Amino acid sequence: MRCFAREGFHATTMSDVVRESEMSAGAVYRYFPSKTSLVRAGAGSVLTNALDVLRDLEAAPEPVSPDHAIRSLLEAVTSFADDSGGDLTRVAVSTWAEALRDEELRALASALYTEIRGHLAHIVTRWRDSGRMPADTDAEHVAQVLFACLPGFILERLIIGDVNADSFASGLRSLQAGAAGTSH
Amino acid sequence: MRCFAREGFHATTMSDVVRESEMSAGAVYRYFPSKTSLVRAGAGSVLTNALDVLRDLEAAPEPVSPDHAIRSLLEAVTSFADDSGGDLTRVAVSTWAEALRDEELRALASALYTEIRGHLAHIVTRWRDSGRMPADTDAEHVAQVLFACLPGFILERLIIGDVNADSFASGLRSLQAGAAGTSH
Repeated sequence: MRCFAREGFHATTMSDVVRESEMSAGAVYRYFPSKTSLVRAGAGSVLTNALDVLRDLEAAPEPVSPDHAIRSLLEAVTSFADDSGGDLTRVAVSTWAEALRDEELRALASALYTEIRGHLAHIVTRWRDSGRMPADTDAEHVAQVLFACLPGFILERLIIGDVNADSFASGLRSLQAGAAGTSH
Repeated sequence: MRCFAREGFHATTMSDVVRESEMSAGAVYRYFPSKTSLVRAGAGSVLTNALDVLRDLEAAPEPVSPDHAIRSLLEAVTSFADDSGGDLTRVAVSTWAEALRDEELRALASALYTEIRGHLAHIVTRWRDSGRMPADTDAEHVAQVLFACLPGFILERLIIGDVNADSFASGLRSLQAGAAGTSH
């Protein structure tokens, strides 16, 4: 992950990975026969972490608002960025580019993202059914927007650099408030 | 742009570009001395298009809602994707990855994105001041979220594939409706 975060997926070679790992080539290849297998392992650890966050939100006694769910996920994203094993948000951006040229990677990313988005749709459904959103809200459509916040935040943070989980969640909360929060 | 869309920025060589252009190497290099200069030209045409859309929205006699603004931008994004000169949304994803390794590209993307986000903040301010959002809404924070929708939508569309401008804008509209749209 340190190699991918530094050089990107495409420019990293298995030799770079072997050197960085300080293990023998044989030991590395035994567990990770290809760069894709390394990304799959990295994606697996991100997914496990995101699903832990999402399951906690779904298990909360009271329905959780969309902005609260996104804030919790962005806090997890920010912790991936601080990971001493390599900034996983940089690895993610690099993987997106490669996924457009590598069907195995695209399918892996698609499965991962669809699973996360499904949990977001469940959180939206519960919020809607508690009367906090219009009854005719299509939870899948709202989940499309909430999911897009995750890669959008990662990119905005890495390219422009002035966003954080607090400012972003505050923006989402204001959007949600709609006219209900005004004094009119 | 066709080369970048197909192979990604990193794997494309200037020789690929010369071949695709069906021009002489001298003619291509006279105008575009590097791959970065090609991306700068592509980014310029995307920015021009996005700014045209944003200026129309800002010039509308009535304040424009955030979901309407995002729908208009996503329709423009979708038209870039159908461009016979190469899917510019694929070029964008490829450029994001390269921008993490190339400070010139990162600065270019950051300037472009900051300009688009500034227009979004202006649209939010007008909407808020017309009484449709809480008076204490921080327009910059909301613009962070709206801007994130653009790369998020591009990625979701390319990797998962089941989103379009209509479904996404409908999700954003439901989010905005908040409790005001409920029958409670």
